[in-house]
Amino acid sequence: MQIKLEQKVLQAIRKVVGKKNINLHEPSFTNLEFEHLQKCIKSGYVSSIGSYVTTFENKLKMITKAKYVIPVVNGTAALHVSLRALDILPNDEILIPSLTFIATANAVAYVNAIPHFVDIEEQTLGIDPFKLRNYLKKIVISKNKFSFNKMTGRRIRCLIPLHTFGHACNILELKKVASEFNLLIVEDAAEALGSSFKGKQLGTFGDFGALSFNGNKIITTGGGGAVLTNNIILAKRALKLSSTAKLKHDWEFIHDEIGFNYRMPNINAALGCAQLEKLDKFIKDKRNLYQKYEEEFKCFNNLYLFKEPQFAKSNYWLNTIILSNSAKYKKNSILKYTNLNGIRTRPAWKLMSTLKPYKNTPKSDLRVSKSLYDRIINIPSSHFLNNS
Amino acid sequence: MQIKLEQKVLQAIRKVVGKKNINLHEPSFTNLEFEHLQKCIKSGYVSSIGSYVTTFENKLKMITKAKYVIPVVNGTAALHVSLRALDILPNDEILIPSLTFIATANAVAYVNAIPHFVDIEEQTLGIDPFKLRNYLKKIVISKNKFSFNKMTGRRIRCLIPLHTFGHACNILELKKVASEFNLLIVEDAAEALGSSFKGKQLGTFGDFGALSFNGNKIITTGGGGAVLTNNIILAKRALKLSSTAKLKHDWEFIHDEIGFNYRMPNINAALGCAQLEKLDKFIKDKRNLYQKYEEEFKCFNNLYLFKEPQFAKSNYWLNTIILSNSAKYKKNSILKYTNLNGIRTRPAWKLMSTLKPYKNTPKSDLRVSKSLYDRIINIPSSHFLNNS
Repeated sequence: MQIKLEQKVLQAIRKVVGKKNINLHEPSFTNLEFEHLQKCIKSGYVSSIGSYVTTFENKLKMITKAKYVIPVVNGTAALHVSLRALDILPNDEILIPSLTFIATANAVAYVNAIPHFVDIEEQTLGIDPFKLRNYLKKIVISKNKFSFNKMTGRRIRCLIPLHTFGHACNILELKKVASEFNLLIVEDAAEALGSSFKGKQLGTFGDFGALSFNGNKIITTGGGGAVLTNNIILAKRALKLSSTAKLKHDWEFIHDEIGFNYRMPNINAALGCAQLEKLDKFIKDKRNLYQKYEEEFKCFNNLYLFKEPQFAKSNYWLNTIILSNSAKYKKNSILKYTNLNGIRTRPAWKLMSTLKPYKNTPKSDLRVSKSLYDRIINIPSSHFLNNS
Repeated sequence: MQIKLEQKVLQAIRKVVGKKNINLHEPSFTNLEFEHLQKCIKSGYVSSIGSYVTTFENKLKMITKAKYVIPVVNGTAALHVSLRALDILPNDEILIPSLTFIATANAVAYVNAIPHFVDIEEQTLGIDPFKLRNYLKKIVISKNKFSFNKMTGRRIRCLIPLHTFGHACNILELKKVASEFNLLIVEDAAEALGSSFKGKQLGTFGDFGALSFNGNKIITTGGGGAVLTNNIILAKRALKLSSTAKLKHDWEFIHDEIGFNYRMPNINAALGCAQLEKLDKFIKDKRNLYQKYEEEFKCFNNLYLFKEPQFAKSNYWLNTIILSNSAKYKKNSILKYTNLNGIRTRPAWKLMSTLKPYKNTPKSDLRVSKSLYDRIINIPSSHFLNNS
């Protein structure tokens, strides 16, 4: 009797992760987290002022080589404050992938700008730079050095490439395109802490990079994120905007623009400091986990395990199987079967261009995004599964 | 030789708080906080899902008697999500006091509405309901049951009264005015957890109430806030909006409107659970501290210590001295002298109507706000100062 694809996928995952019920991604903690939290409590500083925030900042600078780091409450806030610091104006169009978490699109909406969805490529799961260039050549008219969308008359001002599931998009080629069309870049590196492209850490290629430390990310601060930049003016502006735009004064409350309450609390930074000490190990574990999955999945001929793109070194935050066209009709039954059997799997996010709040905003041809949404399944990827 | 007012104020404070350098407000922690944080870490749940968030919610329900509580990342987020949940529209005018923290005005700006500043009263430091009624009678024209501002043509949709420094404003009279002009109410109870008016907890009178648990508040979660409401429909909507508007599904990511990443992380809720167990003690201590200050300040004839308004029971979050008109020219020198001598004091916030982002928005006559800004000095109020 032939074994069904659903069963084969479950068996392959089970061989790697063992017999227990397994979540998609879980954080792991040791005494180190508790020690830092205890120190933080003893210091009396748990809120937005405190030495752990500074230590966390400095550790992130060391790891990413970004010149400036501003820890914030979450990845969404990191994207939002980046766009505000870049003076994105209401009705500017911002190019983003359609296959992304809703935070990317929402951050654009928060500044009253318009997400404009562009297609991705199968090699990186990120924005396709060549397709983007051709698309912009068709739709852009240049005025006063800015790019305007011929169809809508709106300025196209910024590009937000996502490093999907921790894998680098073709960021260098995207930078070229951005430069040709005078676009700013905010890298959505929410999932990509510790990943690199040609040896340079993700999140440090653009005008800003945004990280997330949500509970499901490679390291967690409970809730948290960070803004990365190498530009001192942008760094100062992002810091100010994330701290209610309050000007320095010994006692007066003077705010000269509309800012946000986005600073990361010290208690969350304390947790993050402990987690960052383990980042190298987490990445090593996750790369090993990928290898184990690769062993199990290499014999499948109707799906493949996504591998880090050329020139990229991935943190393998979330392992991904991609069904062939002939097997994509099985996606939902594989999801159902694995979830029913205690293995948490999930599809890619629904394309932003299909969701109610964004279905009427501009978009390019999205055939690769649609195809990948139909074929992607994420599988359990906690670093400790490597040891099971 | 006559002793200067600056010296007399310093001496009065020193008699209560002792000889050390003293901050304006500091949190205090014991083993209980460690224990809860340790449990939280051991559970593996530090992010927006976890049992501490539910426990924190339930404890707040018990304390405030609000039917529904949604813990969020901070007080600003609580105000913002409340306004969105009430469907405040762009260009609606929202009535707020000019004497408030910038978060109140910013939350209005975040929904693209317009803050409209109204005056406060000396008895409560909150919005003056009688002056408000007279003002609205003059400027409002009613159309389709809504109130419109005759001068600007914009709809006036909501009132955000602040319970300043933990003292109840005249919320029942304000509710009457709101009802007469068909205005929604969001209570800014950021500073007022545990305070009540006629026996009812602040934050539970309006359509929504917003609490803050920032490091300087009566209890802290590091960073945090909560939305209170007694209306199940509003509660569901606020919860949804604070959780990226994601619809329930076993694995798909479907969001049917633009939401926020505002849920309080479990680790912050764990800290909050420990703190809430001490709330009664904190309030008792702070009411005692007020009494001690009252002893020292009662003999002054050119200032007075602000006392909880009639029918109100205050948490005395922040003690406040108010200079007489004849002594107000001394405000800055008292601030300088006390701060130079290791006693942290501060003025009230600069009036919103004088700050760059808000100086051109509508306002009523603000003479009491201006007068109080010129005369208010906040003095150290940590609960443990009661024991020194």
